[in-house]
Amino acid sequence: VPDTFTAEALLDAYPILSAEERLEGFAMLSANEAADFFLALSTHDQAGLLQELGPERSRPWMRLLAPDDAADVLQSMEPRERPPFLALLDMATLGEVTALMAYAEDAAGGVMNPRYMRLRPEISVEIAIRYLRRQAIRGIEVIDYAYVLAPDMRLLGVVSFRELFAAPPERLVSDIMHTDLVTVTDETDQEAVAHLLIEEGLLAIPVVDAEGRMKGVVTADDVVGVVQEEATEDIQKIGGSEALDEPYLQIGFADMVRKRGRWLAVLFVGEMLTATAMGFFEKEIARAVILALFVPLIISSGGNSGSQAATLVIRAMALSEVRLRDWWRVARRELLTGLVLGLLLGLIGLVRILVWQAVGEVYGEHYLLVALTVAGSLLGVVMFGTLAGSMLPFVLRRFGADPASASAPFVATLVDVTGLVIYFTVARILLGGTLL
Amino acid sequence: VPDTFTAEALLDAYPILSAEERLEGFAMLSANEAADFFLALSTHDQAGLLQELGPERSRPWMRLLAPDDAADVLQSMEPRERPPFLALLDMATLGEVTALMAYAEDAAGGVMNPRYMRLRPEISVEIAIRYLRRQAIRGIEVIDYAYVLAPDMRLLGVVSFRELFAAPPERLVSDIMHTDLVTVTDETDQEAVAHLLIEEGLLAIPVVDAEGRMKGVVTADDVVGVVQEEATEDIQKIGGSEALDEPYLQIGFADMVRKRGRWLAVLFVGEMLTATAMGFFEKEIARAVILALFVPLIISSGGNSGSQAATLVIRAMALSEVRLRDWWRVARRELLTGLVLGLLLGLIGLVRILVWQAVGEVYGEHYLLVALTVAGSLLGVVMFGTLAGSMLPFVLRRFGADPASASAPFVATLVDVTGLVIYFTVARILLGGTLL
Repeated sequence: VPDTFTAEALLDAYPILSAEERLEGFAMLSANEAADFFLALSTHDQAGLLQELGPERSRPWMRLLAPDDAADVLQSMEPRERPPFLALLDMATLGEVTALMAYAEDAAGGVMNPRYMRLRPEISVEIAIRYLRRQAIRGIEVIDYAYVLAPDMRLLGVVSFRELFAAPPERLVSDIMHTDLVTVTDETDQEAVAHLLIEEGLLAIPVVDAEGRMKGVVTADDVVGVVQEEATEDIQKIGGSEALDEPYLQIGFADMVRKRGRWLAVLFVGEMLTATAMGFFEKEIARAVILALFVPLIISSGGNSGSQAATLVIRAMALSEVRLRDWWRVARRELLTGLVLGLLLGLIGLVRILVWQAVGEVYGEHYLLVALTVAGSLLGVVMFGTLAGSMLPFVLRRFGADPASASAPFVATLVDVTGLVIYFTVARILLGGTLL
Repeated sequence: VPDTFTAEALLDAYPILSAEERLEGFAMLSANEAADFFLALSTHDQAGLLQELGPERSRPWMRLLAPDDAADVLQSMEPRERPPFLALLDMATLGEVTALMAYAEDAAGGVMNPRYMRLRPEISVEIAIRYLRRQAIRGIEVIDYAYVLAPDMRLLGVVSFRELFAAPPERLVSDIMHTDLVTVTDETDQEAVAHLLIEEGLLAIPVVDAEGRMKGVVTADDVVGVVQEEATEDIQKIGGSEALDEPYLQIGFADMVRKRGRWLAVLFVGEMLTATAMGFFEKEIARAVILALFVPLIISSGGNSGSQAATLVIRAMALSEVRLRDWWRVARRELLTGLVLGLLLGLIGLVRILVWQAVGEVYGEHYLLVALTVAGSLLGVVMFGTLAGSMLPFVLRRFGADPASASAPFVATLVDVTGLVIYFTVARILLGGTLL
């Protein structure tokens, strides 16, 4: 064991250590290093470490946490394991943490900090500055704004430090505060809070209840993590898995297999319909085996164009660029996009078959009809895939489901069956009397 | 036109207005509302509005922007259009903006704010506080930390306002500052800066050059947008499109078709190999048409499991949970995952065929061999898909490409061809002498 054992060294090694090695390493840190280390851990790891330490040895670490972080840590433990850790907090913090835990974890109330710089409207700038200094000493994060509250806690206005420092000392806070406030309620979804922060270019947004009483502040650093988490969930769903909720290398094998296997099995059962659909066209395939050759090409083109459209719409929805009521605009746009993309792929397919025929004469005397069948099917399949992929997120959201569940594999599966039907129908029309 | 025409109302209507209506609406706002409105616009829209106004009428709005925002706005204009707008800035800001524009837009240097609270180490706490008040008045964002610099601008330490306010007035800044600094260089990728901020739980990170000289500060609110942008790019790539770089409803039709068509065409050309592969097995299909029925089911299972694995690994890489050197750990894990998932799907497939056979006798006398062929192929295809999907992001990163290019459709295409080869090879082995 090296002499200069630091928080950083332990953090690097942490993911690959056993529970015992973790405790041992943590015990070896100096008090300062241990605090740095503990605060640098993820919420998930903090909860794990506290549980490994046991409540008796956890008091200094629980008290090191800000109320919102303490609430997060407790919420990542099983409910029955929380009480002994809750009991370690001082009374004031206990009240705040309990209040925070009552909020849904993904609502503004769940990520806000209940400690913020507060002022009364009737005091002077000079007194306000002195008062803010005292609040900063008491351990409140300084984030550019102080909030002006009525005695009943109603939020009256906001003033930036910059403005406060620049104002004549004898002026009243009420004279210089802004009253055109951007606020959220404690139930606002944290993703919406993040968008609002980004759009308004603010460092923090106050959280108020239905009566306009101030509850806390959500700062940009609280939502950077949120934005990242939500994106991770969406990406994992788009990839056709449930959200893992844990880092890839840390999630247990059984959990991972369950979260992936469930979706794969559902998709597989859906995809079985392709075997049924192919069964309907067994006679056609027996008569013209050549048709079978293009099945993967055609259905995958539908799946690819559908995945693409679905993913673009899912992300646009997550960013609030597209709302439910925009479905018709999106549908028109995607239909036109699908037409152009379908023509493109159809044309490439046509050329491919004509060139192969010219070189090797592999497609028999009716090669031109085969080529037209493939090209026509591609046009139809890509248009359908694009439209279905772009509309599926709207349908899911309309029925209260997560649009991101319109994963690439889900859309592909949906489009595969239809693709087969389109292909063999076009074939029946164009090849009836010749190959079929 | 309503009397109470506000910034908010114009913001809501903005996306659907013509250029003329936008100018007209903007002109109708009061000075205060116009400033609120302008600052609330996205960088892209700010640039657009300035260009519509023309340089003559843009001076107040250019000067309203912080240096980093001004640099962003200018960078979203064509290079030849920038000079007249640059000329509107005051000399000090012009220097800062030009320096910022020299950085890559996605590096720390490109998002940092060159204005921050600075202190000398040898002054007392009392003087430091007075000095910081003066800086705040000069319009510097207050974000909890002040940076302690040597005369040559080398970053010596950092001190929070909280600590400064709590310290005895006569102590020296150098006595209370922290010297274990978390810094980034001006070339650090902005995504890496965001991760560092989240990991360390900081509101801001100082940017230093190779000699340790302070260049600026990246604050959490700068990177919330970055995190969102990067996630959007990754999601769009995973969905099998190029990154749109513009909101879905605002990007021009031709641009969108180009960005989507290019990838679809590449995937289509790759997918053509399936027709070639199927061609190799044309004789087998002609002899046992029943084999063709399961082609879509089998190749899509490979594609789905591959998309899933690729997406999880891409996201884990973007979050720095998984590094290049972890490839072997991931490979072992995914091989095992693929084995379990393959057994699961193989079993479902086996049961499906046996049940259908029991009910309708659709698969002929060799149904058991067919069922085993399908089940065995599913096991092989899912294992291959999972392994290929999880390794592809590593290969891409190893060769300097973006791992997110391992899109769901790309992986599916890659796995389709192999899936066909696996399927027909298993069929030749199991069905040789009976059906084949």
